Amino acid sequence: MGSCCGNGLRLDSGVREDARRRLLSVKGHVEGILRMLEDEKVYCGDVLKQIKAVDGALDKIGQLVLRSHLKHHVVTAHERGDEDRILEELMEILKYR
Amino acid sequence: MGSCCGNGLRLDSGVREDARRRLLSVKGHVEGILRMLEDEKVYCGDVLKQIKAVDGALDKIGQLVLRSHLKHHVVTAHERGDEDRILEELMEILKYR
Amino acid sequence: MGSCCGNGLRLDSGVREDARRRLLSVKGHVEGILRMLEDEKVYCGDVLKQIKAVDGALDKIGQLVLRSHLKHHVVTAHERGDEDRILEELMEILKYR
Amino acid sequence: MGSCCGNGLRLDSGVREDARRRLLSVKGHVEGILRMLEDEKVYCGDVLKQIKAVDGALDKIGQLVLRSHLKHHVVTAHERGDEDRILEELMEILKYR
Repeated sequence: MGSCCGNGLRLDSGVREDARRRLLSVKGHVEGILRMLEDEKVYCGDVLKQIKAVDGALDKIGQLVLRSHLKHHVVTAHERGDEDRILEELMEILKYR
Repeated sequence: MGSCCGNGLRLDSGVREDARRRLLSVKGHVEGILRMLEDEKVYCGDVLKQIKAVDGALDKIGQLVLRSHLKHHVVTAHERGDEDRILEELMEILKYR
Repeated sequence: MGSCCGNGLRLDSGVREDARRRLLSVKGHVEGILRMLEDEKVYCGDVLKQIKAVDGALDKIGQLVLRSHLKHHVVTAHERGDEDRILEELMEILKYR
Repeated sequence: MGSCCGNGLRLDSGVREDARRRLLSVKGHVEGILRMLEDEKVYCGDVLKQIKAVDGALDKIGQLVLRSHLKHHVVTAHERGDEDRILEELMEILKYR
């Protein structure tokens, strides 16, 4: 999970902090489901509801980061000259979203 | 995040163990993204790719639990007589999936 | 697009009629987009919004038919003895939904 | 379903033609499902499979138009000065996709 790429484009620091806080909450939620799964009487429907909730929280984080990416890097890609790379990457990210 | 409901229906233990193992890996993945987000030079595109990967892993867990739920509880709901509850719950879970 | 299968299970007639009416509206919507696409000045954003709207209408029809299928055929599958077929088919349908 | 907006941005003509051809096929597919739904013996599972197929074909068209939009209008939005409008519109389109 390399966090780099040398392209000089950075996630906006406010969004980064917001995403980090939300992801900490996702982690707590995942730990809660892990505890549920230790209970041999756990009911499938309850697990499915919790997975769906985590999914929704993750999607929200993805949306925040995506909006920031579009705003700070995608709409300026042609000026910077890296629009081909930005476009391919974005289509990959948006596939089956 | 109550893990109970007194309906007596339980997640199959093999699936429960499989889901737990996969969810532990999801937790590790989330922690990896949290570390990425501590780096002020982190690139949005890299974060989005990782979020998408976690999303895919979560969806897979959801599918395993859903299949088990359908197999062990949904196809027998009419016999048990709780088909109304099972149906409403399932439609809620499948909404926007 | 074979409409049969000889399994004797039928879509509930009320739901069938509702789905037909909604799908007629989807067809009209698709024809509207086709007209838009004949205009060489059409704007991508407008096309994308219309495609999204049709997608939403189709999903709604899918949900109606799915609910009916769950209610009339899935919750009784074990009694009928065709639960394996019903389960595989359902997982295929729900994949990536 | 207004096809205009006076922003001067146009869907690329090659993509427009491709989208039109694909959408014609979607229309034919929808008509096929409409015929299925006239059969009172039609099976839910078959309808669901066809709806899913149409959904996939529509998504493909959406992806083609989206890629063209990103390539021709989004990556140049900052230069044109309409990045705010483009961004809000895009987030709306991508929501729940």
